[in-house]
Amino acid sequence: MRSERQITDWLRSKAIVPPGSRVVLGIGDDCAIYRPKGSAEDLLFTTDLFLEDIHFRRTTHTAADVGRVAMCRSLSDIAAMGGEPRFALVSLCIPAWADDIWVRKFFTSLTATATKAGAVLAGGDLSHGPTLACDVMVCGAVPKGKALRRDGARPGHILYGTGRLGGSALGLETGKGRAWRRHTHPEPRLEVGRYLRETLKASSCMDLSDGISLDLKRLCLASGVSAEITDPPLFPGATLHHGLHGGEEYELLFTAPPRTTVPATIAGVPISQLGVIVPGEAATLTHCGRPLPSLAYDHFASAETPMK
Amino acid sequence: MRSERQITDWLRSKAIVPPGSRVVLGIGDDCAIYRPKGSAEDLLFTTDLFLEDIHFRRTTHTAADVGRVAMCRSLSDIAAMGGEPRFALVSLCIPAWADDIWVRKFFTSLTATATKAGAVLAGGDLSHGPTLACDVMVCGAVPKGKALRRDGARPGHILYGTGRLGGSALGLETGKGRAWRRHTHPEPRLEVGRYLRETLKASSCMDLSDGISLDLKRLCLASGVSAEITDPPLFPGATLHHGLHGGEEYELLFTAPPRTTVPATIAGVPISQLGVIVPGEAATLTHCGRPLPSLAYDHFASAETPMK
Repeated sequence: MRSERQITDWLRSKAIVPPGSRVVLGIGDDCAIYRPKGSAEDLLFTTDLFLEDIHFRRTTHTAADVGRVAMCRSLSDIAAMGGEPRFALVSLCIPAWADDIWVRKFFTSLTATATKAGAVLAGGDLSHGPTLACDVMVCGAVPKGKALRRDGARPGHILYGTGRLGGSALGLETGKGRAWRRHTHPEPRLEVGRYLRETLKASSCMDLSDGISLDLKRLCLASGVSAEITDPPLFPGATLHHGLHGGEEYELLFTAPPRTTVPATIAGVPISQLGVIVPGEAATLTHCGRPLPSLAYDHFASAETPMK
Repeated sequence: MRSERQITDWLRSKAIVPPGSRVVLGIGDDCAIYRPKGSAEDLLFTTDLFLEDIHFRRTTHTAADVGRVAMCRSLSDIAAMGGEPRFALVSLCIPAWADDIWVRKFFTSLTATATKAGAVLAGGDLSHGPTLACDVMVCGAVPKGKALRRDGARPGHILYGTGRLGGSALGLETGKGRAWRRHTHPEPRLEVGRYLRETLKASSCMDLSDGISLDLKRLCLASGVSAEITDPPLFPGATLHHGLHGGEEYELLFTAPPRTTVPATIAGVPISQLGVIVPGEAATLTHCGRPLPSLAYDHFASAETPMK
């Protein structure tokens, strides 16, 4: 059962949310949703691992890069549900090679990234260990019942994306230039997410952490639909392969009913029409009329498997 | 700055909680406290790493042991603040040696432990990686403003503890018998914690995760006091050294004003008077009139450093 879907499907069957629980959304979306007693807000919770030699290398990533990206990954999940970040917990396993200066630079960058997004570092855990591992939990908030989710896309809805794709994958390949900066300086689309929730009222939304060919499949599976896409806008120098299958973009993928007015830019970020949602519970993806394989789909063969 | 106090003091100075934030308690206690808008409840948040070859060995701990203890560690922090567990997020880094059966047994044990405590597994993250690492975040709830904290102990208050100490350290040494079972089957003192909050109204409380000589020092530092203790009640076969310095007990340490009626057992758990709180901001500990060193105090020399 080493594919993401097999493990998370099995876990969802184990982790039954009992009636009366305040967990209104469990495993299977960008964040879990908890509804505090008597509150006008729902709270969103997400956690993301960031591991040495799996997600980054100490020879190429600075301590500031690691802290920044580790925090951005979770902030991006909050953005995908239209939330406002509130606080974070950070667990860090520190190997012998990471000295005090590294640890300070890591936390300085991580807390600066959190602070910019409105989140307070409220706690966590520290340990020694063989390789550097960190896990960042972020809590965000949305008005009660208003979180953007993956399961609202319907046939006929138009599919959109933020930004230009493939830059992060290109940066990982080349290790230099604007693409490398793009890889190490992702921007969680928090303002866009809030606009999609409050103003545009997107029918579904998720963040692009593993590439459009995999993430769109997840959105379609959650919504019980299929999708047809054309070429996405590409980051300068990126190939179509980077754009369709490259991960760690932290852009947003969202849908809206056909007559929705969607601006060309939201909060300064370009918005592009990527395709259309069509009927089909099998979550079949086509690109320019041909089947689009989810190349990273057996995710355990590559890197990371979000339980969402 | 490789001691716990140095890193967490530095982080607390970095992670300023801004006025108006709903984070009412940040780094420095068993849990962070978040106050949801309009809610009659405060939410408690804690996260704990549980790492192969640091906290457990795969040759001695079964998958069920790892799942159970990993969950108990965080549940114990909720107990220490008198909370009711609500939900958990689990991040798991899976090495090649951990096959599907291991992963299933781990999650089955972890979710059973959570369910017994009233918590739902609501999400998390999965990844491959070089060694097994897991991080368990638990959210609990208490009535607004009622969480038990570390900072309320005052000179003259009496110091109490639950259970008998040293069994977990003895079990780790011998690897067998009742002491090993004690090491691998900790019991988060959730009912006791609720009683201490609701009925006994303890002036301070924390859980014993790193041994009384270290944890009591933390409680004294948080409260700005010192403490004098006598011999704690010992687990059968445990030495005084196990009882004073052994970790992973997950019992509760608490204080109450002198005229408080403290029952001999709470929820079936024996309660013992351990000593008395005395003036002294330096958090000096004495045992039977002699200085008690916090043997695990430079925690990075041993194993784990909770950011709390």
